[in-house]
Amino acid sequence: MINSKAIERYRTKFLAHLEQKPISKEPRNLYEPISYILGLGGKRMRPVLTLMTAELFGGKVENALDAALAIEVFHNFSLVHDDIMDDAPLRRGNATVHEKWDVNTGILSGDAMLIYAYQCFENYPAETYKALTKLFSKTAIEVCEGQQYDVDFETRDDVTIPEYLKMIEYKTAVLVAAAMQMGAIVAGAKTEDANSIYEFGRNLGIAFQLQDDYLDAFGDPKTFGKQVGGDIMENKKTFLFLKAMEFAPSDDREGLMHLYSIQPDDAMAKVDTVKAIFMESGAVEATKKEIENYTNKAFSTLEGLNIPDENKALLKEFGENLMRRTV
Amino acid sequence: MINSKAIERYRTKFLAHLEQKPISKEPRNLYEPISYILGLGGKRMRPVLTLMTAELFGGKVENALDAALAIEVFHNFSLVHDDIMDDAPLRRGNATVHEKWDVNTGILSGDAMLIYAYQCFENYPAETYKALTKLFSKTAIEVCEGQQYDVDFETRDDVTIPEYLKMIEYKTAVLVAAAMQMGAIVAGAKTEDANSIYEFGRNLGIAFQLQDDYLDAFGDPKTFGKQVGGDIMENKKTFLFLKAMEFAPSDDREGLMHLYSIQPDDAMAKVDTVKAIFMESGAVEATKKEIENYTNKAFSTLEGLNIPDENKALLKEFGENLMRRTV
Repeated sequence: MINSKAIERYRTKFLAHLEQKPISKEPRNLYEPISYILGLGGKRMRPVLTLMTAELFGGKVENALDAALAIEVFHNFSLVHDDIMDDAPLRRGNATVHEKWDVNTGILSGDAMLIYAYQCFENYPAETYKALTKLFSKTAIEVCEGQQYDVDFETRDDVTIPEYLKMIEYKTAVLVAAAMQMGAIVAGAKTEDANSIYEFGRNLGIAFQLQDDYLDAFGDPKTFGKQVGGDIMENKKTFLFLKAMEFAPSDDREGLMHLYSIQPDDAMAKVDTVKAIFMESGAVEATKKEIENYTNKAFSTLEGLNIPDENKALLKEFGENLMRRTV
Repeated sequence: MINSKAIERYRTKFLAHLEQKPISKEPRNLYEPISYILGLGGKRMRPVLTLMTAELFGGKVENALDAALAIEVFHNFSLVHDDIMDDAPLRRGNATVHEKWDVNTGILSGDAMLIYAYQCFENYPAETYKALTKLFSKTAIEVCEGQQYDVDFETRDDVTIPEYLKMIEYKTAVLVAAAMQMGAIVAGAKTEDANSIYEFGRNLGIAFQLQDDYLDAFGDPKTFGKQVGGDIMENKKTFLFLKAMEFAPSDDREGLMHLYSIQPDDAMAKVDTVKAIFMESGAVEATKKEIENYTNKAFSTLEGLNIPDENKALLKEFGENLMRRTV
């Protein structure tokens, strides 16, 4: 069963691998920030997915560790550069790299991490190496494109639902998808199966991000990690917002437009008003339905896979647990 | 003969290849800066070296075009990010990317260029692809390390000559070396020969950079592209400065230390005083000798190469022309 114990086993193996790699080299000012950000923790969800997929496709966890590391290094690279762009002071409760050092250090250490991610694949034989790094490059470019769309959307008021879905797909889902496909590739899966597990990860990743939008507004403040209502306070045009703008009557739409152009002192009153519009307009229902659609799309890609039925069941269970989360 | 006509032929083929590649895609704000910086021109020295080396090792220029493009894209990536770090307003007489757009655009477009550089290799068969991208990653990390050393040296007053030489080797010479080795790799050269041409490029690259230090102070203002004395005005601790600090009598050393801590209104008086110390101390002689040493080291690596003698002679001639430059 892909229960929390199994996940914990993958995470432990991954962390042991991470610690084995000597990153502390000269010049210190380049490599210390890399050790720092990689050591800040986080759920390690992406590398866990690589190891899990490798095992469910009949491969060895050990053989997937380097690919998992590449994915995690890339993910942390993108955090370092995104935090500069967002001017974010904190990451996982600690100072961001550009805060602890400076912006130039953040840029240069990030660059070195991106290159180091490619080097993580170098122990694989040439054919596997090429398959993995090609997938990696395609994914990495899409993540950059997703970040650019996200930046562009901040100053646009005509973002469509398909555009928004493409943005979260590129910014978040494709890396989840690639993490899983890499597990399949190192396990020697057929191309067709490797592509199917990519689709599973991609659809589940979109569902996950939509759920994140939903929980940010309607999650339980006791269990949700971030400040509930944070997206609304920051005027982030999430799926809920876009759907409300599609469905709400014109006076509510105007009210919403106004609320999303200000940052009032009484932030909670704004959050409550906006949430009421989200509910009354049917935006909440539409979001829940979209999450379900993408989750079901993910599950349907499992059917054709050439792996034991029990492993398919485990992947489905994993997806269900992920979608049942309230945090 | 590797005369200017031959160089021009390589450059023309490279530029035709560059134009063929469609970089203008969505999102525009990510890809326009990439087209912009790649279109600003420059000597295209590195890709020319790749094409030239491929041909001198018996390979086809056409087969080296993608590797040459990767090298040029990487070089331009490093310019975009370095210009942010140096807060430079101009590049090749035009606005830098972060000036024309903004810092965030410079960071993200640069990231996309680094990834795109890897993608340029994807048309090569798996074994060649792996050899090229491994060399590329090793080189790219060293360029980052060189940039970090350069940044670190600005605030240190105990930089040694070996440290300085390592910095210019990493920041400049290894990319020249890798550009040439890639030409040899795509031409199917033996590992030993590919390594030798790397050494040729590395030593010639160091000589070239030392000569750049020399010309910055003593070049002919009529033909030298940049402002003569620029390094001195900016208090850059070049090879000339470090050698003067090693050789000059203590009162001159103190004078030099003082001059390198100020930016006086009469910059030319400072430049003249510093140049006099460089000459009297023997730093100029020592620099010329070091340039000759590295040039000779480069030439000696040609001897063992398994290529026709006339091609060795062409490489030597190319190096001599490069070292005879006054611009």
